[in-house]
Amino acid sequence: MFKKICIIGVGLIGGSIARASRANGLAQEIVGVGRQTPNLQRAVELGVIDSYELDIATAVGGADLVVLCTPVGTFEAIFKQLKPVWSEQCLYTDAGSTKQSVIDALKLVFKQVPVNFVAAHPIAGSENSGVEASKEDLFIGKRAIITAEKQTAAWATKACEAWWQTMGAKVSMMDVQHHDEVFAATSHLPHILAYSLVELLKNKQDEREIFEYAAGGFKDFTRIASSDPEMWSDICLANGSQLVKLMQDLAQINQQIVGLIEANDKQGLLDIFKSAQGAREYYLNLQET
Amino acid sequence: MFKKICIIGVGLIGGSIARASRANGLAQEIVGVGRQTPNLQRAVELGVIDSYELDIATAVGGADLVVLCTPVGTFEAIFKQLKPVWSEQCLYTDAGSTKQSVIDALKLVFKQVPVNFVAAHPIAGSENSGVEASKEDLFIGKRAIITAEKQTAAWATKACEAWWQTMGAKVSMMDVQHHDEVFAATSHLPHILAYSLVELLKNKQDEREIFEYAAGGFKDFTRIASSDPEMWSDICLANGSQLVKLMQDLAQINQQIVGLIEANDKQGLLDIFKSAQGAREYYLNLQET
Repeated sequence: MFKKICIIGVGLIGGSIARASRANGLAQEIVGVGRQTPNLQRAVELGVIDSYELDIATAVGGADLVVLCTPVGTFEAIFKQLKPVWSEQCLYTDAGSTKQSVIDALKLVFKQVPVNFVAAHPIAGSENSGVEASKEDLFIGKRAIITAEKQTAAWATKACEAWWQTMGAKVSMMDVQHHDEVFAATSHLPHILAYSLVELLKNKQDEREIFEYAAGGFKDFTRIASSDPEMWSDICLANGSQLVKLMQDLAQINQQIVGLIEANDKQGLLDIFKSAQGAREYYLNLQET
Repeated sequence: MFKKICIIGVGLIGGSIARASRANGLAQEIVGVGRQTPNLQRAVELGVIDSYELDIATAVGGADLVVLCTPVGTFEAIFKQLKPVWSEQCLYTDAGSTKQSVIDALKLVFKQVPVNFVAAHPIAGSENSGVEASKEDLFIGKRAIITAEKQTAAWATKACEAWWQTMGAKVSMMDVQHHDEVFAATSHLPHILAYSLVELLKNKQDEREIFEYAAGGFKDFTRIASSDPEMWSDICLANGSQLVKLMQDLAQINQQIVGLIEANDKQGLLDIFKSAQGAREYYLNLQET
């Protein structure tokens, strides 16, 4: 239970964290921080936060939990504003989709990662963004990854873990590098592919028809590609080296498929498609266990 | 209303056509043809077809509607078996996802496209395949494309159109080349990308973890990639030239994104992602009209 939670960035994730904390009796008071007054006012109207501030140093006064929920590209600037008012009694954490970039930004500002900062990543989201899309049950049954550093204080890690568990998440521990590798594959690359496919097709001259007949597979891609561009461009840059490597590997497989089509090699295509189909079954079995 | 419908290939689509025809009073008798007796027996048990034959020439005797529902790569061989028993009083049609390949196969076997063959493509499907997955309402509210040729008999086109409309589909006319272009973009390319992404990731050493954390975007890809490999390898080859062209265009966009990541160019990434995000809104607006 926290006396005062300060949410920096009250959008889909920040708003859902605020709602889930309140719904589970985890917060006496919740203050939001952001750059846009109308959005913060709306968050107050919706009952997501109790009040808001535009200045981070003011907002965090007396807080015992501070959560960064802005796109990861903003973290360094936020850490600079937090540094002069840093409190040893407060738990600091984040909800960013990349973790090495968070550690790098902390080291740049603080020389080393503060013992009371616990990097975390809830695996939950939606193609809708903004506080209007936030939900108190967004994290129930979802994964939340904590990537604690060696020097992270045990009390901080435990408090962060208990907080996510009470909001309904299944918490796992992972090291930073491994986290960024796994999510480059399962999340960052699929999002980029969705963006690039939609971008390719919307520039076709038959644009209207292409969207009319999207039911044949393309619809899922447009849904993924409607995720927040600000957040995703930051993620691309924050996890760039992992992503570029995967994109090059994928280009090779795509080139292999092009070669099989040009060689009229049905067996070659079947081998790849059957192998991929088998993966779905594997995935479904995992979900049941 | 048909006296006898002969369904060649009683899987997801063939089975659903049989169920929808029966449910809408469009068939007095439905005979299935296939290569695998257990599947055909199961189709009879499920009430999808009345009876089955393994020999096409026998099965089509007395039929006034013959529908090809096998993968498009099998069509040429089927046309060769149909040729000696071809009836001028019967409507022949298909449910293949590519249309030029069907016309090419007909020309190869019959010298020209028979006046009573109407090429068609219902835009409906599922990641599940086989007769067990067939449903009588699969086509309700879905599109069905008819790509009639110049010489196609008006009675045949009208009968095919009325049949699909009664099964609940919204019928559009399209020319063959245009059909193959549009569906290369909206359906064939997305399926290949799903297969290639899943294939890439299942070979990673962290396979188990990658599937465990698939909720971040990858899940939709595994669903698409679980579609029938036999059907999709045929589609790749049947619409190869369109597909290869699109895959090369997509490789260029992906390479552009790699370049932007390497140059740390946030604005460049934002431009592409925002442009793609706008396409989703366009798509949703189309659905409402």
